[in-house]
Amino acid sequence: MPTVHHTIPIDLGDRRYDILIGTGLLEDDTAFDGLPKSSVALIVTNRTVAPLYAERLRARIAAKHRAVQVLELEDGEEFKTWDSLNSIFDQLLGAQADRKTVLYALGGGVVGDITGFAAACYMRGIPFVQVPTTLLAQVDSSVGGKTAINHPLGKNMIGAFYQPQRVIADLDTLDTLPDAELAAGLAEVIKYGPIADDAFLGWLEDNLDALWARDKQALARAVRRSCEIKAWVVGQDEREAGLRAILNFGHTFGHAIEAGTGYGAWLHGHAVGCGMVMAADLSVRLGLIERSYAERLTRLIERAHLPVRGPDLGAERYLELMRVDKKAEGGEIRFVVIDAPGRASMRAAPDAMVRDVLAAHVG
Amino acid sequence: MPTVHHTIPIDLGDRRYDILIGTGLLEDDTAFDGLPKSSVALIVTNRTVAPLYAERLRARIAAKHRAVQVLELEDGEEFKTWDSLNSIFDQLLGAQADRKTVLYALGGGVVGDITGFAAACYMRGIPFVQVPTTLLAQVDSSVGGKTAINHPLGKNMIGAFYQPQRVIADLDTLDTLPDAELAAGLAEVIKYGPIADDAFLGWLEDNLDALWARDKQALARAVRRSCEIKAWVVGQDEREAGLRAILNFGHTFGHAIEAGTGYGAWLHGHAVGCGMVMAADLSVRLGLIERSYAERLTRLIERAHLPVRGPDLGAERYLELMRVDKKAEGGEIRFVVIDAPGRASMRAAPDAMVRDVLAAHVG
Repeated sequence: MPTVHHTIPIDLGDRRYDILIGTGLLEDDTAFDGLPKSSVALIVTNRTVAPLYAERLRARIAAKHRAVQVLELEDGEEFKTWDSLNSIFDQLLGAQADRKTVLYALGGGVVGDITGFAAACYMRGIPFVQVPTTLLAQVDSSVGGKTAINHPLGKNMIGAFYQPQRVIADLDTLDTLPDAELAAGLAEVIKYGPIADDAFLGWLEDNLDALWARDKQALARAVRRSCEIKAWVVGQDEREAGLRAILNFGHTFGHAIEAGTGYGAWLHGHAVGCGMVMAADLSVRLGLIERSYAERLTRLIERAHLPVRGPDLGAERYLELMRVDKKAEGGEIRFVVIDAPGRASMRAAPDAMVRDVLAAHVG
Repeated sequence: MPTVHHTIPIDLGDRRYDILIGTGLLEDDTAFDGLPKSSVALIVTNRTVAPLYAERLRARIAAKHRAVQVLELEDGEEFKTWDSLNSIFDQLLGAQADRKTVLYALGGGVVGDITGFAAACYMRGIPFVQVPTTLLAQVDSSVGGKTAINHPLGKNMIGAFYQPQRVIADLDTLDTLPDAELAAGLAEVIKYGPIADDAFLGWLEDNLDALWARDKQALARAVRRSCEIKAWVVGQDEREAGLRAILNFGHTFGHAIEAGTGYGAWLHGHAVGCGMVMAADLSVRLGLIERSYAERLTRLIERAHLPVRGPDLGAERYLELMRVDKKAEGGEIRFVVIDAPGRASMRAAPDAMVRDVLAAHVG
């Protein structure tokens, strides 16, 4: 099989880093060239990923550090908590980690978000490297510097904007990814079509079967294009003052599904997939796009093995949960809607219209 | 009594704010002009300060917000914990606080550090205003954007660099400050002489009695000069890559005293006062300054009602605690030492010499 290797530079003012996307990167010392040396390094991973890839990563970075420790968190969104974060701090302080200590986040979005936030806060900031092993983390959490933990009253409520030194996305790690998580990652890939690149949506319709079969060339193109679009958006709006919010297409409904069912019950990507169906319907009802476009998007989401109907929490509970979403202002819910194929913006919508959307797509 | 009012602009790249220093500021609506409006504002304070000043502050900002809530933390360094931080998040989420919500930190350094860190992390960053009511907070914690909480294994280990919208330092609040806390603040004021401004040290020797008597003109000058020096240092090195570390003069020994006796047993400023005596002695032993200069500094620290002898933790315990200090690198302790009157730098020192310093100033 041919080697695939792309480098996407991310340029954010004084912080610049590269995303490496390719096959065999965890076997390739050159992918780690130039990363910082330090006395201590800590690989933060989880119980599922550690036995698969932790030793391989340790071998790549061993020469840069006097000691490389590994910390295994529990696996799952429900462990994206202060307790997990604090276990990283405990380990760092126990190892007398200093300001040059390097954190490696080896795993999916949960590991990346917690580890990035730990790096942002430990001694007010230490370097970290993302090694995402899920499709979702490779296309989404590895670009843009958003780090966070959940609070019982809201997802990603406590966090920081903090950029990694490098992102190393080895596509081979997707071979061990469960189908449900592949689908979750495809939700975030599909998202980039309606909000930013209508041609990409067409490409996805043509290549979904190859992606589902984990074809490396197709995956490389999907990850690369997703990262490029995200980097373009984030480059214009690092701190989410405006444009960046469009990346949350499907996420307002999606977060309500996750919070309402208890974090961990729904995979984040599944909730986003279903949330995109709802947000597309809302866009139709607001008169922004044709019904046929929403239906085309819904079909693609279904083909990616994603749910297109939400849990029956009751419309009022959905509304209540969406009012505490980070995009809300003064209690008014603001949704990312599709203005036209490949273009999105943020808008408020009447509660009655939101109830209609929920009635059509819930239960 | 004449009104005192200084404005010190702090310019840090894209983040700029003013420090207002004066009398009667908590009665003066103009001191609050231009601060952001929002649906919800939260005043974070403590049980000691709340009955004195919370209503006054609430009256000043009431017109800017639909609701102003007050959260009273426990008073003391031992409460600079995750639990206190989380109580702020709980209150914010309970109030459906959004990204525009403004936090006001009304109190000393502990309140300022926790509230600033809460503002840095809540939804990845919301605006906050510092209203410091202790001398220490007015001269020190309100400049430079350092925010943090303590970890059982180390002070200020978890935090962020995050700048306030404004600092409003009302000197009248120092009238209610206990003597021990006035002394603690004087420690941080005195610090600026040996590290940056030898003439200021002379001025302090001439005016210590006026400061102790809480003369507003003298306090204004001391706070202003301290903030100016700190702003000058931080402006050159916001993220503590080099020069900024000199602001930690006396803090390596001081942090060991605080950690070794349990946070809260020693006031931070008292530990710093004693730590400066030790660090000055270390500077003499390293051959950098005359013994007479260290003795002059020690006399001034004594006159400020600060302890000049440390607790007997045992030299090895001191060394162990100092090795986890944030300035340490690869287990090597680095001390801020006086190179010459008004000039400081960071250096390592032989353990044997540090033991001699401790033997001379402990117990």
